[in-house]
Amino acid sequence: MRKVWSSPNQTGELMSVRVLILGVGTVGKGVLKTILGKPEFSVCGIASSKGYIYSENGLGQEALKQMAAGKKMSDAADFKQGSAMELVKEKEYDVLIELTTTDIKNAEPAFSYMGEALVRGKHLVTSNKGPLALHFHELDSLAKKNECMMRFEATVGGAIPIFSTIRDYLADEKVGSVKGILNGTTNYILSRMFEERIPYATVLKEAQDRGIAEKDPSYDVEGIDAAAKLAIIGASVFGKKNAYSEVKRTGITHVTPEILELAAQRNYRIKLICSADSKGMEVSPRFVGLSDPLASISGTTNAVTIETGSAGPLTLVGRGAGQNETAAAVIADLVNIEKNTR
Amino acid sequence: MRKVWSSPNQTGELMSVRVLILGVGTVGKGVLKTILGKPEFSVCGIASSKGYIYSENGLGQEALKQMAAGKKMSDAADFKQGSAMELVKEKEYDVLIELTTTDIKNAEPAFSYMGEALVRGKHLVTSNKGPLALHFHELDSLAKKNECMMRFEATVGGAIPIFSTIRDYLADEKVGSVKGILNGTTNYILSRMFEERIPYATVLKEAQDRGIAEKDPSYDVEGIDAAAKLAIIGASVFGKKNAYSEVKRTGITHVTPEILELAAQRNYRIKLICSADSKGMEVSPRFVGLSDPLASISGTTNAVTIETGSAGPLTLVGRGAGQNETAAAVIADLVNIEKNTR
Repeated sequence: MRKVWSSPNQTGELMSVRVLILGVGTVGKGVLKTILGKPEFSVCGIASSKGYIYSENGLGQEALKQMAAGKKMSDAADFKQGSAMELVKEKEYDVLIELTTTDIKNAEPAFSYMGEALVRGKHLVTSNKGPLALHFHELDSLAKKNECMMRFEATVGGAIPIFSTIRDYLADEKVGSVKGILNGTTNYILSRMFEERIPYATVLKEAQDRGIAEKDPSYDVEGIDAAAKLAIIGASVFGKKNAYSEVKRTGITHVTPEILELAAQRNYRIKLICSADSKGMEVSPRFVGLSDPLASISGTTNAVTIETGSAGPLTLVGRGAGQNETAAAVIADLVNIEKNTR
Repeated sequence: MRKVWSSPNQTGELMSVRVLILGVGTVGKGVLKTILGKPEFSVCGIASSKGYIYSENGLGQEALKQMAAGKKMSDAADFKQGSAMELVKEKEYDVLIELTTTDIKNAEPAFSYMGEALVRGKHLVTSNKGPLALHFHELDSLAKKNECMMRFEATVGGAIPIFSTIRDYLADEKVGSVKGILNGTTNYILSRMFEERIPYATVLKEAQDRGIAEKDPSYDVEGIDAAAKLAIIGASVFGKKNAYSEVKRTGITHVTPEILELAAQRNYRIKLICSADSKGMEVSPRFVGLSDPLASISGTTNAVTIETGSAGPLTLVGRGAGQNETAAAVIADLVNIEKNTR
């Protein structure tokens, strides 16, 4: 693996890992805040859709602190209008942290940022589902060819260590299948419909009022978000090449309180289950027996069961989203890269 | 960290990692079987309470295969009567895999084996709770002083990656507390008492008949096994020095079906919960709300919830014991050591 500590400074000491952050939304601010407390990293550049700030030897701590606390980047003295791509392609850095908004249609411009960084041999950490769901294979090939690491724990299941566990702890195991609840909004809706015996439309409205569901809920309720996450699992764990387009997908819009009740009478819950194995990938509402840990996952919690050869089924449960959780997953990936190249 | 690949062979190639296995029960056989398929490791010695076989350059594959399949070690041509301590103290090897029977009173002879190996700078993998519950601090200090790794994932929760997750994935997080169900026998008894509304003594008998509980069940039902596991968590995660003796412990012998039923009416389950934080450690039957993932853990399944600063609560669920699961955890530790010293 390519070392991130590429350039010793004038006194021969190794420099800190230089990080370039794309996207300064809530997750970006959370990541920034944590990195500021860690001397082994320095932030050399930050970019938003409007422009960027960059300094080869690391941006000033004070300005970064203010930005982490909410100050607009465009108010910074050294703010430059220009494209993030300039930074990615032309400036020096060791790790790209790609946190821009996800797009499941063409995954741009994030896919190009990631590709350019990997071509240059820069390590990559991302929370962005689109490029990985649509182009995992291309990105993974670029990473391997250029001897750099690509880490994406934050794309699926918040801070639940799905990929880390498979990569590190289960390195010696054959993973037979991965099955889980990967979309908090639909799980919340199904949980509420069941608990309160109220119809889909009523709960959807409540979820929208509480900010759990979007105004246009189709991305969640049609299973698109879950399918994108499942595609990343399918591609990275089972080598599926056109993972996203191969996911069989059914949303929750036709589930009724009566169906949930009938299932309960037979000791089942109905959950929007994502499953992947070497044969294929599917997102659909499915009966889950009460003895299955997934049956008890309620609200916006996510969970994943990894079936292995000899370690048995392992189920990991945690918060599926949130600023802190996503930022924690990004930082865990970054720390892992630093450790693996030390 | 000390390299395990210590001695290049005559052509200058690095040799495989030489493993010394103490204990050839079901777990030892499972470990042996897996190692045999992995060219990066060679088994140079195996010891039981009766004697050992050893060859500095690795034992023959055929003899090891027969042993993994159940052939008695004492029937091997090169079997020597003698103490395992001879091997540990005097012979060459890179990693000690300590799988002898656990003893929670004085942890011997396993504690001495481990200590001697660490003093010699040998890495250690173990499934043996006793020495870690009673002497974690001493062993950990020896490992640090002699620059070797000590891995013990198999001691708690079967193949559930509790320590790996905290060490590797949560390296950057402050762990606030660890809470879990760590004894399958008591969880099975409580689950059956609740499901069937039958008293403790009846279920205990059933568990004994099914081989889930021992003839003398006190080690499980008094919470001793759970306390030993919790002590390892308390010592390794929260730095408790006399961890086992500091665990507050209450078993399940006074729990009745009526108590379980009353709890259920208030939407609780009663579980034998192990909890540890910086303040202390406790094993006791406790009320667990139905929204807690631990509430739904039934039968011999184990589960652990790790509370972290920003990654939120993470719950890991899996089989708490079993030959394959324990062997898988041992192998995962061994592979991790090999990876970290490559």
